[in-house]
Amino acid sequence: MAYNLLKGKKGIIFGALDEKSIAWKTALRCHEEGAQLVLTNAPVALRMGEINKLAEQVQAPVIGADVVNMDDLKKLFEESMKHFGGGVDFILHSIGMSLNVRKGKHYTEIDYGFNQKTLDISAMSLHRVLRTAWELDAINEWGSVVALTYIAAQRVFPDYNEMADAKALLESVARSFGYHYAIKKKVRVNTVSQSPTRTTAGSGVKGFDGFINYAEKMSPSGNATAEQCADYCVTLFSDLTRMVTMQNLFHDGGFSFTGISHAVIEQMEK
Amino acid sequence: MAYNLLKGKKGIIFGALDEKSIAWKTALRCHEEGAQLVLTNAPVALRMGEINKLAEQVQAPVIGADVVNMDDLKKLFEESMKHFGGGVDFILHSIGMSLNVRKGKHYTEIDYGFNQKTLDISAMSLHRVLRTAWELDAINEWGSVVALTYIAAQRVFPDYNEMADAKALLESVARSFGYHYAIKKKVRVNTVSQSPTRTTAGSGVKGFDGFINYAEKMSPSGNATAEQCADYCVTLFSDLTRMVTMQNLFHDGGFSFTGISHAVIEQMEK
Amino acid sequence: MAYNLLKGKKGIIFGALDEKSIAWKTALRCHEEGAQLVLTNAPVALRMGEINKLAEQVQAPVIGADVVNMDDLKKLFEESMKHFGGGVDFILHSIGMSLNVRKGKHYTEIDYGFNQKTLDISAMSLHRVLRTAWELDAINEWGSVVALTYIAAQRVFPDYNEMADAKALLESVARSFGYHYAIKKKVRVNTVSQSPTRTTAGSGVKGFDGFINYAEKMSPSGNATAEQCADYCVTLFSDLTRMVTMQNLFHDGGFSFTGISHAVIEQMEK
Amino acid sequence: MAYNLLKGKKGIIFGALDEKSIAWKTALRCHEEGAQLVLTNAPVALRMGEINKLAEQVQAPVIGADVVNMDDLKKLFEESMKHFGGGVDFILHSIGMSLNVRKGKHYTEIDYGFNQKTLDISAMSLHRVLRTAWELDAINEWGSVVALTYIAAQRVFPDYNEMADAKALLESVARSFGYHYAIKKKVRVNTVSQSPTRTTAGSGVKGFDGFINYAEKMSPSGNATAEQCADYCVTLFSDLTRMVTMQNLFHDGGFSFTGISHAVIEQMEK
Repeated sequence: MAYNLLKGKKGIIFGALDEKSIAWKTALRCHEEGAQLVLTNAPVALRMGEINKLAEQVQAPVIGADVVNMDDLKKLFEESMKHFGGGVDFILHSIGMSLNVRKGKHYTEIDYGFNQKTLDISAMSLHRVLRTAWELDAINEWGSVVALTYIAAQRVFPDYNEMADAKALLESVARSFGYHYAIKKKVRVNTVSQSPTRTTAGSGVKGFDGFINYAEKMSPSGNATAEQCADYCVTLFSDLTRMVTMQNLFHDGGFSFTGISHAVIEQMEK
Repeated sequence: MAYNLLKGKKGIIFGALDEKSIAWKTALRCHEEGAQLVLTNAPVALRMGEINKLAEQVQAPVIGADVVNMDDLKKLFEESMKHFGGGVDFILHSIGMSLNVRKGKHYTEIDYGFNQKTLDISAMSLHRVLRTAWELDAINEWGSVVALTYIAAQRVFPDYNEMADAKALLESVARSFGYHYAIKKKVRVNTVSQSPTRTTAGSGVKGFDGFINYAEKMSPSGNATAEQCADYCVTLFSDLTRMVTMQNLFHDGGFSFTGISHAVIEQMEK
Repeated sequence: MAYNLLKGKKGIIFGALDEKSIAWKTALRCHEEGAQLVLTNAPVALRMGEINKLAEQVQAPVIGADVVNMDDLKKLFEESMKHFGGGVDFILHSIGMSLNVRKGKHYTEIDYGFNQKTLDISAMSLHRVLRTAWELDAINEWGSVVALTYIAAQRVFPDYNEMADAKALLESVARSFGYHYAIKKKVRVNTVSQSPTRTTAGSGVKGFDGFINYAEKMSPSGNATAEQCADYCVTLFSDLTRMVTMQNLFHDGGFSFTGISHAVIEQMEK
Repeated sequence: MAYNLLKGKKGIIFGALDEKSIAWKTALRCHEEGAQLVLTNAPVALRMGEINKLAEQVQAPVIGADVVNMDDLKKLFEESMKHFGGGVDFILHSIGMSLNVRKGKHYTEIDYGFNQKTLDISAMSLHRVLRTAWELDAINEWGSVVALTYIAAQRVFPDYNEMADAKALLESVARSFGYHYAIKKKVRVNTVSQSPTRTTAGSGVKGFDGFINYAEKMSPSGNATAEQCADYCVTLFSDLTRMVTMQNLFHDGGFSFTGISHAVIEQMEK
């Protein structure tokens, strides 16, 4: 069902890797809701070629950009504004990468060079994106920026490793930059803290299966799917949520405020 | 602008006192978005007669109910289901009353009999409403319940007095009942923590003017209006937010995560 | 080991039922640390007679008081001040009672008359105690008040039932009254959120065994014991924590900030 | 007044720059409480020479270490263990540095190279310290680690700039590493979120005076001093707080849970 919630709006979607991606689903839903889009991802991710399928579906150009390269970001925004014939109304930041996780380094043994890349790509990239937009005055008044995060920023999920710290940093950047952008142009910046989701990126985390099952049992409404997350992002990009800013919004079927569920107790007693 | 976000949905709105009320505005917006409504309030509030104007606008019956009277609530839900020809999809709980505040009792000098009424009417009423619906199986699967609250539940705003404690209790009831209702029927229960709003109820609080001005200066996007709150409630009643439950959602222009703003610093330096 | 941390201090301990009680252990530790004490509990609890054993050990009078009876509380404070020859330096509030839990009522089926008693005894009692002290000016400057609470105030533990709501209310009262008492006399008011503890009261909760085991597995340092809680309370009553106020302090071996532990994952995979 | 709370304990204090430093006061108090100490700071800070005065007072060796240099940290722990003739019982991490703040860069215009240094020195340094201790098994069972932080990690204080993000990262590292260290050796790791304090480091922040005055008016018990923070750290290093871990502990006279105070309202109305 579509409602034209984003009719006339223009948005940039970061991080649509393949059709399991939350960013991919969000791009589809934004398109259904009437938005015009630009898709972007790191050059190395674009080489996979999958994104072209999405680009066709949502009739959007694909503009490569390395999120830690300020020139790339500048070019991305300039080309997007040219394509849209004006400013941007919303941005989805769905970006995360940890070489330490990939290499299977335990949290107590991380490589600090890798860690620096993790923080830069997964968290400071939001600052870089917002700062580029700020300097080019690329976001329209009442624009909306959403970055995807995970509850490991608040509580320890040991296998999530250094990504927990990166997400805590990301959420802080959202608040800090959100303050300035709200004052300047009423632009809102929020993070959505999504249930563990069986994306290509998510599945890379060690012990992911056991973990997603636990979350399913612990969440009174079950784990939120990528499609449901896309729906939620649509509301946050719409004009109906203009005063929600600097928030971390849990989209997780109630996981975040459940201390224990009967389903988990039963499993524990087995 | 209307999107048909609530097309075919049926909802009960508690607490539309007069046209400044958030509940009033929310009823209007829900109607615009295609919902069918039942309006309800305490018999004493209905006697003002204002609500009939709203009832006409949104073509809804008005059914009086004292929220601490289980028979009244039962009758309300039974008549609503008869009117709708089926279950309820959403409920707005916008109910609060403090005799201690009205009588100007300082927090350290509250009357405990009044306090008990405050807690019952302002907080336990949510339990009573949900429990009545639960017993009659009155809420449809994926239904959505929103109760309005205030950040005094988290931090002290001294003039808010015992209502702070009532709101903390209300938010806890939303979580607790939300857990059970999510498991039973995927019904979600959330609270929306709204900016101070110049309603007839809100204005009764001592020092309200100074206070709303402070909040305006402290909120990077300014205070959220009643109309904006109505918009936000619409998204929470829609099918796009099904996995958001047991949350307290700040709708306050960023007030909740601002420690200090430059506007307040300037004022402090005067 | 004793340090004379409370040398010369006078305190009132509410809720020492039997030797498993946290209040009992806290009384012992406060005595070891040099404090002079008054013990109090509800008349019905005193009839058990256990407390006299403690009274002898810590050389303290026992003064009965029903915490929802303002005359009783007034008498308690007046007699305590007479006994001490002056004001009180610290108070432990370890009081909770739920008839709905005792009668095995499900959260969705609570009796509202019982619930009102639960809220009054378990939460508003803190207000009543502080207000009585306030009116008699019974707490010395820089005094310290601790009330025991549980993390169900923040997240749902379904078997904890309406006590979750009572604890949320209690924590709000601690903040609200804490604000006023800090301004008036630098008195601090905090809540300590303790691990599930095998006390006579705690064990009454349905499914307590499964639950305490889960908490043990989920807490990186294990569940905190009653003795450890007593130690912690001693630090909060001492002069070393004067600026800690209006806080909810988790004393739980890290449970509160652990999303999942490897020990729980292993158990889930069995 | 001293209590011998840390009798027989050995600790390492990072960050005692001059006699206004919280670390300096904490070293003095730990010494009074019977602890043996090692002092450390960055070589560039040591060159000021001030620390030798403290070293004499607390009879502690000074061992320079750059917290982002793993060899330095290894040497620090090895020499400390040699000096102590065994493991370490507690560590104070009072380290923060932002070149962007020093150079007066606005948050929206930070230099990313400087930012990387800020995050490394102010936050990841805690990981580096703990990891070095972990590898050398340098911390005794039930050891205690405290890192100083600030509430800007939770809410925006615009002039605090990128240090807010660094503190959010620091607090996440404390939780993440705290989980592992609790499981391994019952070592606890907490952060203390202190009132703004007139230290040499703190005073460097733009608008610090206005800011500290605001905090004073907003805190029901007033701002916590450096001496009071030292007292609080002593309790956290003692054996009385063994089950407090992975927490962020506000030591701020109630600032963190005050939404508004009458003193601020009065100032706003001027």
